[in-house]
Amino acid sequence: MQQGAKPRSIKTGLPPGSLVYIGAKKRDDSDITVISYDQMNCMDKKLQTMDEYLQYKKQNAIKWLDIDGIDQIHILERLEEYFGIHPLVLEDVLNTNQRPKIEDYGNYIYIVAKMLCYDHSRKRIVSDQLSLIFGKDYVITLQEREGDVFNPIRDRIRNNVGHIRKMGPDYLAYTLLDTIVDNYFIILEEVGNQIEYIEEELLQKPSSAALHSMHQLKKEMLRLHKSIWPLREVLGAMERRESELINESTILYIRDAYDHAIQLIDTVETYRDMLSGMLDIYLSSTSNRMNEVMKVLTVFSSIFMPLTFIAGVYGMNFRYMPELDSPWGYPLIMLVMAVIGGSMTFYFRRRKWW
Amino acid sequence: MQQGAKPRSIKTGLPPGSLVYIGAKKRDDSDITVISYDQMNCMDKKLQTMDEYLQYKKQNAIKWLDIDGIDQIHILERLEEYFGIHPLVLEDVLNTNQRPKIEDYGNYIYIVAKMLCYDHSRKRIVSDQLSLIFGKDYVITLQEREGDVFNPIRDRIRNNVGHIRKMGPDYLAYTLLDTIVDNYFIILEEVGNQIEYIEEELLQKPSSAALHSMHQLKKEMLRLHKSIWPLREVLGAMERRESELINESTILYIRDAYDHAIQLIDTVETYRDMLSGMLDIYLSSTSNRMNEVMKVLTVFSSIFMPLTFIAGVYGMNFRYMPELDSPWGYPLIMLVMAVIGGSMTFYFRRRKWW
Amino acid sequence: MQQGAKPRSIKTGLPPGSLVYIGAKKRDDSDITVISYDQMNCMDKKLQTMDEYLQYKKQNAIKWLDIDGIDQIHILERLEEYFGIHPLVLEDVLNTNQRPKIEDYGNYIYIVAKMLCYDHSRKRIVSDQLSLIFGKDYVITLQEREGDVFNPIRDRIRNNVGHIRKMGPDYLAYTLLDTIVDNYFIILEEVGNQIEYIEEELLQKPSSAALHSMHQLKKEMLRLHKSIWPLREVLGAMERRESELINESTILYIRDAYDHAIQLIDTVETYRDMLSGMLDIYLSSTSNRMNEVMKVLTVFSSIFMPLTFIAGVYGMNFRYMPELDSPWGYPLIMLVMAVIGGSMTFYFRRRKWW
Amino acid sequence: MQQGAKPRSIKTGLPPGSLVYIGAKKRDDSDITVISYDQMNCMDKKLQTMDEYLQYKKQNAIKWLDIDGIDQIHILERLEEYFGIHPLVLEDVLNTNQRPKIEDYGNYIYIVAKMLCYDHSRKRIVSDQLSLIFGKDYVITLQEREGDVFNPIRDRIRNNVGHIRKMGPDYLAYTLLDTIVDNYFIILEEVGNQIEYIEEELLQKPSSAALHSMHQLKKEMLRLHKSIWPLREVLGAMERRESELINESTILYIRDAYDHAIQLIDTVETYRDMLSGMLDIYLSSTSNRMNEVMKVLTVFSSIFMPLTFIAGVYGMNFRYMPELDSPWGYPLIMLVMAVIGGSMTFYFRRRKWW
Amino acid sequence: MQQGAKPRSIKTGLPPGSLVYIGAKKRDDSDITVISYDQMNCMDKKLQTMDEYLQYKKQNAIKWLDIDGIDQIHILERLEEYFGIHPLVLEDVLNTNQRPKIEDYGNYIYIVAKMLCYDHSRKRIVSDQLSLIFGKDYVITLQEREGDVFNPIRDRIRNNVGHIRKMGPDYLAYTLLDTIVDNYFIILEEVGNQIEYIEEELLQKPSSAALHSMHQLKKEMLRLHKSIWPLREVLGAMERRESELINESTILYIRDAYDHAIQLIDTVETYRDMLSGMLDIYLSSTSNRMNEVMKVLTVFSSIFMPLTFIAGVYGMNFRYMPELDSPWGYPLIMLVMAVIGGSMTFYFRRRKWW
Repeated sequence: MQQGAKPRSIKTGLPPGSLVYIGAKKRDDSDITVISYDQMNCMDKKLQTMDEYLQYKKQNAIKWLDIDGIDQIHILERLEEYFGIHPLVLEDVLNTNQRPKIEDYGNYIYIVAKMLCYDHSRKRIVSDQLSLIFGKDYVITLQEREGDVFNPIRDRIRNNVGHIRKMGPDYLAYTLLDTIVDNYFIILEEVGNQIEYIEEELLQKPSSAALHSMHQLKKEMLRLHKSIWPLREVLGAMERRESELINESTILYIRDAYDHAIQLIDTVETYRDMLSGMLDIYLSSTSNRMNEVMKVLTVFSSIFMPLTFIAGVYGMNFRYMPELDSPWGYPLIMLVMAVIGGSMTFYFRRRKWW
Repeated sequence: MQQGAKPRSIKTGLPPGSLVYIGAKKRDDSDITVISYDQMNCMDKKLQTMDEYLQYKKQNAIKWLDIDGIDQIHILERLEEYFGIHPLVLEDVLNTNQRPKIEDYGNYIYIVAKMLCYDHSRKRIVSDQLSLIFGKDYVITLQEREGDVFNPIRDRIRNNVGHIRKMGPDYLAYTLLDTIVDNYFIILEEVGNQIEYIEEELLQKPSSAALHSMHQLKKEMLRLHKSIWPLREVLGAMERRESELINESTILYIRDAYDHAIQLIDTVETYRDMLSGMLDIYLSSTSNRMNEVMKVLTVFSSIFMPLTFIAGVYGMNFRYMPELDSPWGYPLIMLVMAVIGGSMTFYFRRRKWW
Repeated sequence: MQQGAKPRSIKTGLPPGSLVYIGAKKRDDSDITVISYDQMNCMDKKLQTMDEYLQYKKQNAIKWLDIDGIDQIHILERLEEYFGIHPLVLEDVLNTNQRPKIEDYGNYIYIVAKMLCYDHSRKRIVSDQLSLIFGKDYVITLQEREGDVFNPIRDRIRNNVGHIRKMGPDYLAYTLLDTIVDNYFIILEEVGNQIEYIEEELLQKPSSAALHSMHQLKKEMLRLHKSIWPLREVLGAMERRESELINESTILYIRDAYDHAIQLIDTVETYRDMLSGMLDIYLSSTSNRMNEVMKVLTVFSSIFMPLTFIAGVYGMNFRYMPELDSPWGYPLIMLVMAVIGGSMTFYFRRRKWW
Repeated sequence: MQQGAKPRSIKTGLPPGSLVYIGAKKRDDSDITVISYDQMNCMDKKLQTMDEYLQYKKQNAIKWLDIDGIDQIHILERLEEYFGIHPLVLEDVLNTNQRPKIEDYGNYIYIVAKMLCYDHSRKRIVSDQLSLIFGKDYVITLQEREGDVFNPIRDRIRNNVGHIRKMGPDYLAYTLLDTIVDNYFIILEEVGNQIEYIEEELLQKPSSAALHSMHQLKKEMLRLHKSIWPLREVLGAMERRESELINESTILYIRDAYDHAIQLIDTVETYRDMLSGMLDIYLSSTSNRMNEVMKVLTVFSSIFMPLTFIAGVYGMNFRYMPELDSPWGYPLIMLVMAVIGGSMTFYFRRRKWW
Repeated sequence: MQQGAKPRSIKTGLPPGSLVYIGAKKRDDSDITVISYDQMNCMDKKLQTMDEYLQYKKQNAIKWLDIDGIDQIHILERLEEYFGIHPLVLEDVLNTNQRPKIEDYGNYIYIVAKMLCYDHSRKRIVSDQLSLIFGKDYVITLQEREGDVFNPIRDRIRNNVGHIRKMGPDYLAYTLLDTIVDNYFIILEEVGNQIEYIEEELLQKPSSAALHSMHQLKKEMLRLHKSIWPLREVLGAMERRESELINESTILYIRDAYDHAIQLIDTVETYRDMLSGMLDIYLSSTSNRMNEVMKVLTVFSSIFMPLTFIAGVYGMNFRYMPELDSPWGYPLIMLVMAVIGGSMTFYFRRRKWW
């Protein structure tokens, strides 16, 4: 669960379609921006209230309505009014624990995806839910937080780079999803670097800190898996879908994004395999080191215990111990000890314990 | 198996459709309540006997018959009589080890689901089987125990909140199942908190108590898995089903509940992955600690064994030991010992054993 | 392989359809009983030879021919003659290592199932193969050994309890399979009890005896899995099958038995998960205990080794050791030893090793 | 890879259909035998050259051409000429690392299978690739080595046992495959015996030799799995195939062989499960034994270290040690030692360490 | 990621179809060669610029355009111009982290595959991405680096060996893919040899170096798996595809290559199973050895600790110790020690600790 988020369970018992925001603490206001474009013109404005949108509604251009901060319920209610969005969709927009999915409502398509970015300060992946609704002449994107990865797309629209101004809302929706997919590659590269770093650390000096990082990474991979796998399904469904909202010419691009998603999944799976392989290596090398430690202990004990015993014998205070009185006693016994110690050492060396 | 329950095996050899209750010990009486409603009116009554239901049967309104305590066989027999329910269904109602499922009998649909709730005192999940039968103008719910999670729905019917009074029995059935699904989220949150708690405990101080809790949680996840997975199939079958009993307009809501069930499954799988990851971590850190212990032992032994041996040598009682008579013998041998001890310590420090 | 059974390999190279019995040692005779019934009458007789069956053959009633002891090849050959059973079927009847399966031969259906029962004296599951052939007006059951779980069914036929006398041979076949399924529940309850018992034992005092029982149980679960999984397929195939031999009204009952089989599989899988979870617990708690043992050893060694060394030093026989002559030498050195021992103890206590 | 075989890679870069033998070293000659039979007659001859076959080609009888030793490329080239076999098929015949498969070339069907036999002297499974081609009136079998398991079939043809002389080449092909399947049972029985033997050994005295045998068996199971699993697909494809070369009446027999293949797979899977269960048991019992060893060590150390320390104290040579001069000193200190030793022993016994 | 390669993420935010090369550092020039052939003639030329290709374009012959070094964007742009290749394809050509895939663009088919070769000096598998585009009368191959495995094919075209000059571009494409598949066998043989070598090493003397090699091999297998598995899909799709660009007669050959790919996958899976089996063996034998070490330590300690204690007792300096003055004291106590030492030795021998 996200930090600061309300639990999903506060919705229990409410009728379906109840608009309750379960994300982190509410913000005071939402940012609403509209980019309205066609092949010739492009306008870009920040709205104060949803009512200002009315003037765009009638225009023939493609409208991209971008809403940051979804906790202003009254804004969502306008979406129902102006675009005919089903309350269940709006409920899903607010439920920020949604699984990525695609739903075809006839005159619009509703897509949920996860925008991930790597928070370097906290060393973990931060997720933001993107709701994307597109119809015949509009695209609506809704996010929890300000700040997204879509600025290059905005620039491409404004500067008329690539095909984007010539294509419909389906192409814009594809572009947004493709950007999210591209963004996953950055995160996976970051994760890949960390895996390589931990692997080297584990092989050289297995510590419980590295073990802990590994465990943390495993959990991150679980989250990535949960975000990417259903996104692949979303793109696959878009490619297959015979909705009139998706043009033939866009399908080719979606297939491309779908290929990228498969590549992502491949990488995630490889990383997970590598991580579980690393645990095995860690366990093996720990038990290997234990073996080394034990051998040192055993070698020391096996050499010095007999010697100490012999010294102890001649430390006994019996009155009648003939060896003690002999002038050769001491050097002889020292020789015996040297022989015993030497042959023990030789024996353990030959068994490669040392 | 539930505590106090009779084993499933007491049914062996009985003809199919034999009504035998296999749950926990019988109660003396059952609670029967009827809520009868249409768009205009809503009535709500507690019945003494099933016979009182006859007066509702002819009404045009939607009837929700709620029976708590299914061990009164004579009540079930009336269901066969009044609603034409097949004996095999009634047998399944009584068999409280049922797997969640859906069966279409043409003029009514029979659904089994598990209501779970977390018993904080005993720290375990308690389960209650809900049988749900709905036909053209009625919904029957049967449970083992009193007390359920449906009070918000009753309030919504009484107070005409949301669409519920405008829709048919299929929508009521959906609402009941959706409430059960919502309830699972509460349980999963509870489980999630426990997993986080145990994880922290295991990482900080791996004890066998934490191991035990982990094992317990694993078994609970197994039970959750067994309840949720088939529930998803039930909802999926309802969404696909072309029964006349399910209206087009309800399908959309069922799809929503189906999405929630998939989200639940996702979470359960994630938790199971996390739990097995934790066991690996536990084993690794145990073997890590063992290593530490062994190193301490080995360092101590390797330093003191040679020293004790040397002390032993000069404790021998040989008459002719020239060192003993030299005035420098004692300080010299003490120096030798200090050098040996010091270099051993240095050696082990350099190998990072300490 | 069953004890006393001939290996499957003695059949290698024989033409298909060769009737060779591969089970345990042959009995001298077989029991043949016929129950012939219709809605009005019911007759029940033990046959001396298969020839006596001829008088029943022409009757309009449903005939249930029950043969215990399948090693009398000449009896099987009569089945080919009287019922037109294919030699390959008879070969399968004799091959008692058969996997449960269903085969539709047009005018009869051939089903193989495993009857299991728990042998309390030997603490293992004993299996007996049931071959079931049913056609338009007859059911043939063939088993290796005397004694089965079908007596309640015989009583229901004799006493006309339930629908059985009103339905056809397909319903009788269903009833037999359902009884076998019901019987599996008894075995699973027995296994469940044992798992709980071993689990408690492992958690309290992990011994190799418990480990051994666990291993034994795992193998039993493997056998159960191998019996139940294909039985589910058999029942599923019966439910789907559009054979004229299976009536519409029986399908409903078969679906019920199919549900039970799925419940069985669920339970078997849960038990297998629990058993492998137990092994992890066992390994963890073993390594935990080892840790405890090691800590005790290390604490003892670390405290007494330095002390013994000091005692050794002052046991040396150097002539010039000023401490030895001081009257405070002994009490002082005892104090030093107490301080060393005490601080070691304190140190290990603070590291929670004790 | 087979011993003595050339690596598969020597074929890299050659055009498809190039006939290169990659098996073990070449033999000098090949054995070619023809059995030609119909319902009335049967002839059986060993050919010197492929040209002799020409006289059989025109006959109406079924011809079974059996070629041992496939390294004589010129023989294979004649197959192309006389039977119209595609060069790709002949290439596959020579590639003895082929996976079992079936390919329908219209007027003939090509099947690859593995004949396995257990080499008792080297304690491993030896494999020989069988290529089987059958058309309207002929069956060709090609093997690497002399010696096969088909002698019982040859006898059945010669002596007109069973249906074989009455059926077509499809039945002969089935009989050959069925014999191979039957042969697998012998090998699995051998493997089963070994598994039981190793299991007992592991439970009684876990040695690294048993571990090694287990590892070896696991690898053999891998090979068996690789031979049997695709063979099942081959038989399944034959059963489904609507080729005119396979008669309706043969399908029934193929279904039987298919059942046997499934039984084989079941057994292989069970054995693999048992083998991995055994490894767990081995690891557990090893760690169990280690625990025992450690306890003995710890008990000895904990008892004798304090005692030796006390003896050391009174071995010190301080001049002023009042205890030494007391006549009760010695017996008293001996009593103290006995009490310490006794209570340690008692303590460890109560903790069940001993 | 390849060494020296730019991360995939530098493409984030660019419009689809942007041609950015993400492989290792750029080369200064590209090699472009054209082989143009039909049944009669064959020409072979190295081009300086893409413009020279224009003279071939009109010819009726089959053109194979082979481009090494794909970082010269201007060359790729000509492909769009001359052959009508879609920008998305060209983008994929440059993205050298592509997953093997096939895409049908109507008048040409685009295939991605990985050429692997084993770099003996660095002991790792090096990969090079091959992009293959073929249309009605041309085949284009694009690689990152110079040097490929296609020389035997070039020779076959030049010298008119096999069918290659008689068939179309689809057959050439097949031949190229088949050569890549054949090449995988060489790599797998190399890997197989290494696995056998490591296995032997692990069984004889488990070292952490062998463990490390094993870990390395596991990662290589992961990479092989990622290259081969999708290649199988590519070949399977080609076999099924009803594109007019693939002739009926070529399908047979593609099926053959598909079989080889399945064989490769089988081998890769077997190797992965063997590698994880080896880890188990390693862990078992490590813990086995630890056991041996511990036994030696325990035997030594258990024998010498009591003896040293006894010697310590008679080293005590009590004035009244009657044993010390007896002339039999010393020999008697030596006898007692010998008896204790001997019986300990005997006891441990009988428990097979030694």
